[in-house]
Amino acid sequence: MGSGGKSPSVRGCGHKGVANMGGRYLVCLSLVMNVVLLTSLVYGRGHVRKKGREMVAGNQICLQERDGSGEEEHAKFCRAAGKASSCNNSSSSLPASPAKLPSDAIINLDHGDPKLFEAFWRDAVGKRGDTFIPGWQAMSYFSTNAAGTVCWFLEPSLEQEVRRLHRLVGNAEAAADRHVVVGTGSTQLFQAALYALSPPDAPHPVSVVSAAPFYSSYPLVTDYLKSGIYKWAGDAYAFNEIPRHERGPYIELVTSPNNPDGFKREQVVEGNDGKLVYDLAYYWPQYSPIISSIDADIMLFTASKSTGHAGTRIGWALVKDKEVARKMTKFIELNTIGVSKDSQIRTAKILGAISDAYERETAPESEKFFHYSRDLMRQRWKSLRDAIEFRGRFSLPEFPTEFCNFFGEEGSSYPAFAWAKCEAEEVDDCAAYLKANGILTRSGKHFGVDPKYVRISMMDRDDAFNLFIERMSKL
Amino acid sequence: MGSGGKSPSVRGCGHKGVANMGGRYLVCLSLVMNVVLLTSLVYGRGHVRKKGREMVAGNQICLQERDGSGEEEHAKFCRAAGKASSCNNSSSSLPASPAKLPSDAIINLDHGDPKLFEAFWRDAVGKRGDTFIPGWQAMSYFSTNAAGTVCWFLEPSLEQEVRRLHRLVGNAEAAADRHVVVGTGSTQLFQAALYALSPPDAPHPVSVVSAAPFYSSYPLVTDYLKSGIYKWAGDAYAFNEIPRHERGPYIELVTSPNNPDGFKREQVVEGNDGKLVYDLAYYWPQYSPIISSIDADIMLFTASKSTGHAGTRIGWALVKDKEVARKMTKFIELNTIGVSKDSQIRTAKILGAISDAYERETAPESEKFFHYSRDLMRQRWKSLRDAIEFRGRFSLPEFPTEFCNFFGEEGSSYPAFAWAKCEAEEVDDCAAYLKANGILTRSGKHFGVDPKYVRISMMDRDDAFNLFIERMSKL
Repeated sequence: MGSGGKSPSVRGCGHKGVANMGGRYLVCLSLVMNVVLLTSLVYGRGHVRKKGREMVAGNQICLQERDGSGEEEHAKFCRAAGKASSCNNSSSSLPASPAKLPSDAIINLDHGDPKLFEAFWRDAVGKRGDTFIPGWQAMSYFSTNAAGTVCWFLEPSLEQEVRRLHRLVGNAEAAADRHVVVGTGSTQLFQAALYALSPPDAPHPVSVVSAAPFYSSYPLVTDYLKSGIYKWAGDAYAFNEIPRHERGPYIELVTSPNNPDGFKREQVVEGNDGKLVYDLAYYWPQYSPIISSIDADIMLFTASKSTGHAGTRIGWALVKDKEVARKMTKFIELNTIGVSKDSQIRTAKILGAISDAYERETAPESEKFFHYSRDLMRQRWKSLRDAIEFRGRFSLPEFPTEFCNFFGEEGSSYPAFAWAKCEAEEVDDCAAYLKANGILTRSGKHFGVDPKYVRISMMDRDDAFNLFIERMSKL
Repeated sequence: MGSGGKSPSVRGCGHKGVANMGGRYLVCLSLVMNVVLLTSLVYGRGHVRKKGREMVAGNQICLQERDGSGEEEHAKFCRAAGKASSCNNSSSSLPASPAKLPSDAIINLDHGDPKLFEAFWRDAVGKRGDTFIPGWQAMSYFSTNAAGTVCWFLEPSLEQEVRRLHRLVGNAEAAADRHVVVGTGSTQLFQAALYALSPPDAPHPVSVVSAAPFYSSYPLVTDYLKSGIYKWAGDAYAFNEIPRHERGPYIELVTSPNNPDGFKREQVVEGNDGKLVYDLAYYWPQYSPIISSIDADIMLFTASKSTGHAGTRIGWALVKDKEVARKMTKFIELNTIGVSKDSQIRTAKILGAISDAYERETAPESEKFFHYSRDLMRQRWKSLRDAIEFRGRFSLPEFPTEFCNFFGEEGSSYPAFAWAKCEAEEVDDCAAYLKANGILTRSGKHFGVDPKYVRISMMDRDDAFNLFIERMSKL
């Protein structure tokens, strides 16, 4: 549960804690009551389950057989293990947080599924985040665009709320002269950008590069259709070593803050003969101080990471050049004939609810999404650093303190992923080591670097995160 | 408006009709009152407009500069013409049907935008087709699948309603051993099928063929990324003439009923060394008698054509082979990391509303979607045949009478498109001829055949359709 993310760990609440009749007892009693009340609240929402063993199983964290990159593999394992109904249970109802997960549960932190924000949208926002769609609405392929809109399937309410949110946050230039292109997640927009920037009739495919460690999906998504117009060419640092006249045309992906390591980035390949695509999925105040409003040619964002609504599959691009926006729109037309109107309408509602809270003078901080989520991420990073601090078996990136224009104060970064390194000499494969200890992560090898590194999602629900911290503190 | 589609034409309601004080006068008066009442009803739903000229402009049918295939071009023209707000106005509210469209309005019947069903979902279904999504719901990438579900992002409610609807209609085998794969429209599933059926390491791309006239998007969607694993190879009849040992591996798309001509189809390429993909987007009772339950390896469907909800971008595939379903799922994972949960949830609601009405003993026929929509299509086809009958300048396909298992009676086909041929000797380019007469259609050349043919959408709203009929009757 979300609020639990800011609560103290329940590790001290064993028999000893109960036996101790001092202040610790009261804290534990209060925590147990919280769990009981929250459980009752969740199950009261039309969700009936049996007690005891089944309830625990229903909230068991799912294990996975590998450390690879496919989301599908996760579900595959769940089915094989006969735990399907307990593996991915966020889409239609929130699960209860049982007092204790099975001590041998395997924790899957391979994926960046942003489930940690569910509680905010249920408890803090109330009806303001709800969406209602009559049966006759949004039936057409087309949207009612304003004059000048390049993306013919973009819902006007989404365009409006996207621009409004960027104005509020100040993370990217989204004035009226920037074209908004909506996509089925930023993954589709990434491909749309490659399509738009690659000449259709060049003799060789354009090289696509990104500085290692790079997002593990980039090579897969670039090459799965063996396109004749673009191809994955690996690490941008290595590409930069190639003499300029031998390079050929290229596209550099600048992911800032970076997935997996959380650092802010600039372009790596020197010269101005390449095209740049800025993947800004994580450039939001909960993850990283907003130090400037980025003004790049193509900037990609996604609801998955900005608000936590991965299931809507809504991303958007801010694009300077009209012809590039037109070609990106064409890609999406050919790929999926537009983007779900329902999810666009819903995302507009969600983004609007965030902006509204910041405009509502009476709104407490707990209703302000970026304040809430920044506090939650900060708390989680503190827990993780505390857990591994004294043993020295793992290291984490250290982020600079920067002035965040949005919060109006100095702050650090609290990325969506922890990019950890196994420091123990005898451990060559950090993901395998953690897996043997019941924690599934994604190996550094998928990000183009050493398997001594792993990417760990910081975005799972509290029960999983707390068990992860408990386990890390013992390694 | 939908009910108007089943009403007699208002062509007789000119001054002469008003002058005639007999029964015809009463019919016309009644029609005018209907229009006034419907207009008032629509504008009463929170939709405020000014009167007079602006109202007419607000419902003007948009013209387009070309007869090509891109939906985007439509919007482009609308913007260029400064008519953006009146071009694509179906997504957030239904437009009123003004008593008379401007006599010089250009009618765009190039696209198959299924707006004719809007009125059903507003008037006949009521709240049963509405969808409500709380802000915290469906945030995860994952769905809560049943054990054995290959498609990890498929919402269980959609899977259930898809199987239920196929059981009701009897158009395709959808028993539990067939895998359901959901897609962002059937366009994405078409590409997923190509990906799943093409060996990743073959020396040459697999040939993709379909019998001409074939759906105009197939060549574009197959080739836009210049894939190294599949390529468009044109008309299946021509491909069949190639000696078998020279053909190489191929995939044949069997579109039945066919887009553009509406005929039922079987495979064309002889032999069993190819793979088949059945595009059954139009194999629903409103378009074609259901003569058997199809049992092919891969069958594609879409909400756009089955229920008229194009804006949801939901399609589904029924797949026999588990490994093929797994690869199709992998494609969608790489392409868009799943499919909008919101639209899946909504489509489940919509499909459920259709099935429910057929199970509700008290439901009148007007609430039964396939009865309603079959009657509407039949009426439209009758209007079109009546309009062109005596002049002989156009011909239309003649469909056999077949026994429809769903309706339990003999019936004809009433396809979503009219595949018309200009019979006049002096007309070589039928689309250009119709365009000169204010009707935009899609030329036969985009479907791999003679430009004496055009594809005309039968699915626009009543006001556009009625003006189209009026115009055709005068050509």
